Amino acid sequence: MTTESPHRFLRACHRLPVDQTPVWLMRQAGRYLPEYMKIRQKAGDFLSLCKNPELATEVTLQPVCRFDLDAAILFSDILVVPEAMGMNLHFSVGEGPILEPVLRHPADLDRLRRVDPEDQLGYVMQAVDSIRNGLDDKIPLIGFSGSPWTLATYMVEGGSSKTFSYIKGMMFDQPQLLQQLLDKLSDVVADYLNAQIAHGVQAVQIFDTWGGVLGPREFGEFSLRSMQNIIQKLHRVGPKGHPVPVILFAKGCGSHLELMAASGCDVVGLDWTTDLGLARERVGGRVALQGNLDPAVLYASPERIRQEVRQLLHAYGPYPGHIFNLGHGMAQDMDPERVVDLVSAVREESRLLFGGQVGSNG
Amino acid sequence: MTTESPHRFLRACHRLPVDQTPVWLMRQAGRYLPEYMKIRQKAGDFLSLCKNPELATEVTLQPVCRFDLDAAILFSDILVVPEAMGMNLHFSVGEGPILEPVLRHPADLDRLRRVDPEDQLGYVMQAVDSIRNGLDDKIPLIGFSGSPWTLATYMVEGGSSKTFSYIKGMMFDQPQLLQQLLDKLSDVVADYLNAQIAHGVQAVQIFDTWGGVLGPREFGEFSLRSMQNIIQKLHRVGPKGHPVPVILFAKGCGSHLELMAASGCDVVGLDWTTDLGLARERVGGRVALQGNLDPAVLYASPERIRQEVRQLLHAYGPYPGHIFNLGHGMAQDMDPERVVDLVSAVREESRLLFGGQVGSNG
Repeated sequence: MTTESPHRFLRACHRLPVDQTPVWLMRQAGRYLPEYMKIRQKAGDFLSLCKNPELATEVTLQPVCRFDLDAAILFSDILVVPEAMGMNLHFSVGEGPILEPVLRHPADLDRLRRVDPEDQLGYVMQAVDSIRNGLDDKIPLIGFSGSPWTLATYMVEGGSSKTFSYIKGMMFDQPQLLQQLLDKLSDVVADYLNAQIAHGVQAVQIFDTWGGVLGPREFGEFSLRSMQNIIQKLHRVGPKGHPVPVILFAKGCGSHLELMAASGCDVVGLDWTTDLGLARERVGGRVALQGNLDPAVLYASPERIRQEVRQLLHAYGPYPGHIFNLGHGMAQDMDPERVVDLVSAVREESRLLFGGQVGSNG
Repeated sequence: MTTESPHRFLRACHRLPVDQTPVWLMRQAGRYLPEYMKIRQKAGDFLSLCKNPELATEVTLQPVCRFDLDAAILFSDILVVPEAMGMNLHFSVGEGPILEPVLRHPADLDRLRRVDPEDQLGYVMQAVDSIRNGLDDKIPLIGFSGSPWTLATYMVEGGSSKTFSYIKGMMFDQPQLLQQLLDKLSDVVADYLNAQIAHGVQAVQIFDTWGGVLGPREFGEFSLRSMQNIIQKLHRVGPKGHPVPVILFAKGCGSHLELMAASGCDVVGLDWTTDLGLARERVGGRVALQGNLDPAVLYASPERIRQEVRQLLHAYGPYPGHIFNLGHGMAQDMDPERVVDLVSAVREESRLLFGGQVGSNG
């Protein structure tokens, strides 16, 4: 299997040398961009935007047009998967997502159907086709899904939660029921990501947004295990014979880094609470690392942004296998101009870093 | 300095042998107790309850009457400190605390006054006097304060926050201004805790609720440093000559455990995302550990609660220096009956654990 992609982002995923550190930003398409807000208004509501392949393509490409990024990420929402499985999804203003009817009892699981991604999630596949077309292979497209644990939290709680009382009650008292749900989700997510790969995404990221609310043992049993099941089922070679790297991002899970690095993924995404230099030593070259600037650095001045970027690049050092990203997504009150500063800083400072390394070897 | 307290909780803080593992619960007085809700209604609102020494005494003692706990904790709120420094505090329904006017510029800091705890926080001191009286030294009373960093987040953001955009902007662009604020807060918090100690609290806990939103370097510079300053200023001997242990609890900071253990505190409180057995090895007997059951275990059945309690006690092992607690506070939708189950499980399972140890030595 050749891993010699010309794309900086894909090369870094495979820990191959690059001329500069590739950079993309979680939630790089979104409400902080005025051009996104225009399309969002046109679509009517958030979910309609996700389901409209033409408009989803447009918002996916917006940050790529505006900034000098090394990858695009499919614009969608993790909760389209539970909807495709038969739950009702809507987004209430100010309250976040609502999924109903909630899953609490064994019989509730029978209502969930196995998804044909080409059918119930056909609009996502159309968007992938159309985005790949729009990108014209200038930069790669990343597909994604929520992790089974993260999806299950919304399906059992009925939406967002602070205490996770129902799903944790289930985890402690009906662990087998929860595992059944996670197994169903693993199957669906694997099919969904494989369909995205078949349609041309060049990497996939699994988002475990809520893995960090679990204790160490429970993270292994209820979140990581199901992500490993998915990774084993993925077609890691795309339709044109290129390898498709898998990125695993689990927020608040820095202490489980070694476990994640051994999961079979190619890249571990880190939030900003983990020291990137120590993380590189801890994974010992088994995986590439993605991250992990505190998104709040974007509230700072251009000078300070550059200083933080430089510090982070030097913390990782002049080694292959670093993809620059934020430790979490862009927030809606961020200034797009600061993203310009951030991306140029990554470009320039990483060229200096790699240049310095070449010099010190010569 | 003698550390031979007869109280199980204080003995464990000093890593002295105990007959069973002491237990108390963060936010053990609160909305999950119907008797609390009655007093809360009588007081009118939450802040009036905090400011009424008689009613604050009553709600502090409620969980102690209902459950077999090893310590009481002063009923109050961390935000009475910024209020005493001159900010306006109110709690809006559903939106949490509001502090105003917010602190954003150097001149804003001049509005903050140094607090005389006997004056502006006299109602807390009266509550301490009255609670000690009510407890009659059957179990010790824990005093507390928010950490400077945690208090500063509310003072700069104007309340709760998801993105911490203003305080992090200040941290990155005006680090000296933030340090000035943290220094002011350290002085006030040290005076406040010393006054609580003078009035008879037998241990103090510093809550760093928001330390976990910081990267490793920033945690050291902006949160831990100011907590260390406070610890150095504390009168660690109470009015009757007894040592007063200091507990440092920082949520989401398990990866900084070694730093916290070297801060000068006697006890580090842990949330449930850190393995307690590994944590004991990491601190190597330098401090006692408090925690760290996932509060959500209280949503499970009595049998499962016991199993989790047993597992946690065995993870720490039959060594001195463990105070059983939750990894975070009680939630309002929890059932007081499950607390009964939890406390009996700690009692019985820890006696078995220590009994087993004595047997294996004999």
